[in-house]
Amino acid sequence: MKIAVLGTGMVGQTIAGKLAELGHEVIMGTRDAEKAKSRKGTDAMGRPAVGDWLSMHPEIKLATLSEAAAAGEIIVNATSGFGTLDALGHAGSENLRNKVLIDIANPLDFSKGMPPTLWVCNTDSLGEQIQKAFPEAKVVKALNTMNAYLMVNPSLVPGDHSVFMSGNDAEAKKAVLGILASFGWKTENIIDLGDITTARGTEQMLPIWVRLMGVFGHPVFNFSIVKGTPAQR
Amino acid sequence: MKIAVLGTGMVGQTIAGKLAELGHEVIMGTRDAEKAKSRKGTDAMGRPAVGDWLSMHPEIKLATLSEAAAAGEIIVNATSGFGTLDALGHAGSENLRNKVLIDIANPLDFSKGMPPTLWVCNTDSLGEQIQKAFPEAKVVKALNTMNAYLMVNPSLVPGDHSVFMSGNDAEAKKAVLGILASFGWKTENIIDLGDITTARGTEQMLPIWVRLMGVFGHPVFNFSIVKGTPAQR
Repeated sequence: MKIAVLGTGMVGQTIAGKLAELGHEVIMGTRDAEKAKSRKGTDAMGRPAVGDWLSMHPEIKLATLSEAAAAGEIIVNATSGFGTLDALGHAGSENLRNKVLIDIANPLDFSKGMPPTLWVCNTDSLGEQIQKAFPEAKVVKALNTMNAYLMVNPSLVPGDHSVFMSGNDAEAKKAVLGILASFGWKTENIIDLGDITTARGTEQMLPIWVRLMGVFGHPVFNFSIVKGTPAQR
Repeated sequence: MKIAVLGTGMVGQTIAGKLAELGHEVIMGTRDAEKAKSRKGTDAMGRPAVGDWLSMHPEIKLATLSEAAAAGEIIVNATSGFGTLDALGHAGSENLRNKVLIDIANPLDFSKGMPPTLWVCNTDSLGEQIQKAFPEAKVVKALNTMNAYLMVNPSLVPGDHSVFMSGNDAEAKKAVLGILASFGWKTENIIDLGDITTARGTEQMLPIWVRLMGVFGHPVFNFSIVKGTPAQR
């Protein structure tokens, strides 16, 4: 399948790399493809800059946001939350029409120092804002409650743990479920929360996620929803 | 130990009952003790009204908010979030001074319909508002991320799952850890998130908790934080 991954940061690279490994035709989209290709070296975490990373992944194409979105049958939003609506505007509503748009971004505001706050929450969510701005896209919020490496490799955390989906379109959620399963997620650990307004719930898990990372000193953890049996009456 | 439980609803009853069972001297506090005692019958869930419940628990005293708070060496805030600051005002800052105040309430706003939203979140929390209003109390936010029955009986959900603590005072958190352990919580499942500002994180888990209850059709579930091992570099 042709999949567009919008955003070339660590999250975009991780998702794009895994999708390509699974045999999909992956087109990454960015504002300025030439600038992205010119980025070399490694970051503070020892990860290659996107220019070098692309050289190591010749099977993955880099294009503008609108070219990538036009080519993709499924679109993954891996841009940073602050830039998402603008980036999707550049991608173009005509290129998102009737397509599954997997939103893995979070509305994190780092401008007021650490830990970040959310710039939209509680009575709204980034997922809903995207769905409202692009009503003909089939937005599915997913994977936004964990580290990128874990998104595509759930076995990094042992045992059962959970991934959530929020979206208005049942067929789109089926498609996302298939992609999650191909990443290694067990069906019983994929929780469909309901419509896109439930994205408020998953986006609001970020504040505790950030604190837990501080407590543990690393991001290799996940939320697991563990169920008991209700008492019979 | 003498423990005051403020609030006579389902959460207050559950906590008070368990503390009494553990041998503590429990004084429940309410705005109007006579009115509470006159409440008889069962609610829609088949639970006894507080008047009947108190008749079934003669070892538990009922008093005004300020009498209960004055008597308690440890105070549990089990009032509804909307009424918490007002109720603690009636309890009296002089009666909260230097005492551990376990805040298990959530700032849930049901006034705009279901699901509830939070009336304070993201850049503030109910836990912080309490600490600010009563600076001499040692506020520890805990147990607010789960159903009341599970708070005092973690074995209702099988295996490992998590309870969080937020607070500025290390000694107070030690005291709360002891109470949690007496409820059956394993030490390794009690996560100290840090100071009281981390209550933002746990209070913001309520929106997904409410949605999960909708998906499952019952409240017998909990969040478990599952850790992996970070990659060596």
